Amino acid sequence: MNNFNLHTPTRILFGKGSLAELRDQIPADARVLITYGGGSVIKTGVLGQVKEALKGFDVLEFGGIEPNPSYETLMKAVEIARKENVTFLLAVGGGSVLDGTKFIAAAAHYPQDIDPWNILLTRGNDVKSAIPMGSVLTLPATGSESNKGAVVSRRSTGDKQAFMSDFVQPVFAVLDPVYTYTLPPKQVANGVVDAFVHTIEQYLTYPVNAKVQDRFAEGILLTLIEDGPKALKDPENYDVRANVMWAATMALNGLIGAGVPQDWATHMLGHELTAMHGLDHAQTLAVVLPSLMNEKRKEKHAKLLQYAERVWNITSGSEEERIDAAIEATRNFFEKMGTATRLSAYGLDGSSIPALLVKLEEKGMTTLGEHQDITLDVSRRIYEAAR
Amino acid sequence: MNNFNLHTPTRILFGKGSLAELRDQIPADARVLITYGGGSVIKTGVLGQVKEALKGFDVLEFGGIEPNPSYETLMKAVEIARKENVTFLLAVGGGSVLDGTKFIAAAAHYPQDIDPWNILLTRGNDVKSAIPMGSVLTLPATGSESNKGAVVSRRSTGDKQAFMSDFVQPVFAVLDPVYTYTLPPKQVANGVVDAFVHTIEQYLTYPVNAKVQDRFAEGILLTLIEDGPKALKDPENYDVRANVMWAATMALNGLIGAGVPQDWATHMLGHELTAMHGLDHAQTLAVVLPSLMNEKRKEKHAKLLQYAERVWNITSGSEEERIDAAIEATRNFFEKMGTATRLSAYGLDGSSIPALLVKLEEKGMTTLGEHQDITLDVSRRIYEAAR
Repeated sequence: MNNFNLHTPTRILFGKGSLAELRDQIPADARVLITYGGGSVIKTGVLGQVKEALKGFDVLEFGGIEPNPSYETLMKAVEIARKENVTFLLAVGGGSVLDGTKFIAAAAHYPQDIDPWNILLTRGNDVKSAIPMGSVLTLPATGSESNKGAVVSRRSTGDKQAFMSDFVQPVFAVLDPVYTYTLPPKQVANGVVDAFVHTIEQYLTYPVNAKVQDRFAEGILLTLIEDGPKALKDPENYDVRANVMWAATMALNGLIGAGVPQDWATHMLGHELTAMHGLDHAQTLAVVLPSLMNEKRKEKHAKLLQYAERVWNITSGSEEERIDAAIEATRNFFEKMGTATRLSAYGLDGSSIPALLVKLEEKGMTTLGEHQDITLDVSRRIYEAAR
Repeated sequence: MNNFNLHTPTRILFGKGSLAELRDQIPADARVLITYGGGSVIKTGVLGQVKEALKGFDVLEFGGIEPNPSYETLMKAVEIARKENVTFLLAVGGGSVLDGTKFIAAAAHYPQDIDPWNILLTRGNDVKSAIPMGSVLTLPATGSESNKGAVVSRRSTGDKQAFMSDFVQPVFAVLDPVYTYTLPPKQVANGVVDAFVHTIEQYLTYPVNAKVQDRFAEGILLTLIEDGPKALKDPENYDVRANVMWAATMALNGLIGAGVPQDWATHMLGHELTAMHGLDHAQTLAVVLPSLMNEKRKEKHAKLLQYAERVWNITSGSEEERIDAAIEATRNFFEKMGTATRLSAYGLDGSSIPALLVKLEEKGMTTLGEHQDITLDVSRRIYEAAR
């Protein structure tokens, strides 16, 4: 096992009706800015319930945070937060609202003579303070509700950057599975695939004999495999929604990644597909992962066999056959969730691969993965085999 | 899945040499009181390393906290903490030192006109403040390093009581598996058995379809089963020690118990055996658990079958045969750890069972377990079958 420093301080308020505990989590004298996205929380009534739950609090609102939240939009909220002396941010929505609100939190306290985009350029290292924040989550997927990371895009330059800071770790997260009943099936599928691949990025590398972490990761994968498809078939099955929601949070709060190597190449190759072709984040992961597993089957050999046996119960055949079967099972699972796993399914013939590689090179992503051995040439092969 | 409110804020500094990060966890201007037990941390050199790591800090020491820490001893430390205006407590040792230090932390800030024993009588509910604390753990077992509970005994009255408070949740825990190399085999075994039964108390009840929690619990059990015996055979195997240590912490930090029913009857019946006959805590658990599993086989039927299959890989035979085999496997595991599972092995013939039941009744423990259906008569049967 590798050494680690793990901190998971976000309080989780989980279950049907847990919004009732919201008002105890925010200082009574706080000036609260509620942030949300494109308005689905208005339609579903969740925003109304949140405001009702905060009756008596001093509350402002900022809506319109888009998927892949933009610097341009978020800076409007930063201005409000500064002008209105906001002292608490409450994100109501999914990962994009969460990530955007983390940027607002850090930017509002950032030195006024420096452009807050610098927070992204410095990866959050120079963030020294932020407005405290919490969330009411409506879309289980990214894990952003209980970690310190965020991804923000800049429309004017086409940039998409991540930052991390202890100061933007949410104080609490209200997770009510009922709020996920009304999600469109595609978003449910995207969430399940996203959480699945988050887990794989921290699990499917090379063994370091970290038994608890491996078992926990396998437990999350098994839960998503069992209950992901059920969430599509039976949208109002509470336990199914609860298991998917909790699995997604546990997949990226730091726990399963503590003390083990991590990969994240699938995410990096996927980001470029989103940037260039507008595929959903989870769709890109479903395309890249099976191809990457096959390309790195030698380096990931031991873990692929463990994954085959413990997650897919594949125990017969030669080692290479078992690995083939595990990769195929992974692909079939994504397809079963309705998420296509080939570039061709998204109308892409692979002709943009050279351009994708140029983008990777521009960002310095010339060596990726747990061994930093996914060179541009390897990335090319991964993209090509995903056509 | 049941609703839950989960907060796991203790920062974990895990791994060989992680003591180097200690000084960054404590305010530079703190007045630190280091607490420890009977002196094994002096012999092993850990205390010296801790003091070296805190060079430049204002440091006091208090040693002599005994196993099953006593109010009488701890009050001496409370007096020092108050008189010396201690602002940070650092527990160096195992669960008893941790628990004792939690009491010191709360008692030092307790109203001076009330006897701090009242903290136990009120189960910690009226604790409104405490000295912040952290720990350097030397014995993985109780999980106290990252939870808010503590058990304190009062020698003068023979009382043993627990309390819980958010205010005594440690800020950090330094977990260096190397510190456990020198533990006597009996303490290693006790720790593994203790962590195993902590997990069982939160797992082996009735199904609420909490898949992540079940898988995590099973992962901890599997890890202890695989690496517990190895820790005895090969004391300086770092990964084995690391896995046991991390499993023990994860077994009782709140995570696997969130959103599921809990039992704890094995602990309650065990406590009386410790109080009356001086058996080690883990020895009492090893005695009571197999007997309790058998007695409650009907109520725990579904979970016993799941436990048989997923933890012990028992899949053939009738349901009752599989349950028998799982109970037997549990007993064999404890015996393999060197922890006897029959009262007779500790020289007890069962003649004290009526007296044990009187003690349970005196404490109001007339209904125990996840269904509160372990009456005194059921407790009697559990004790009797454990002879």
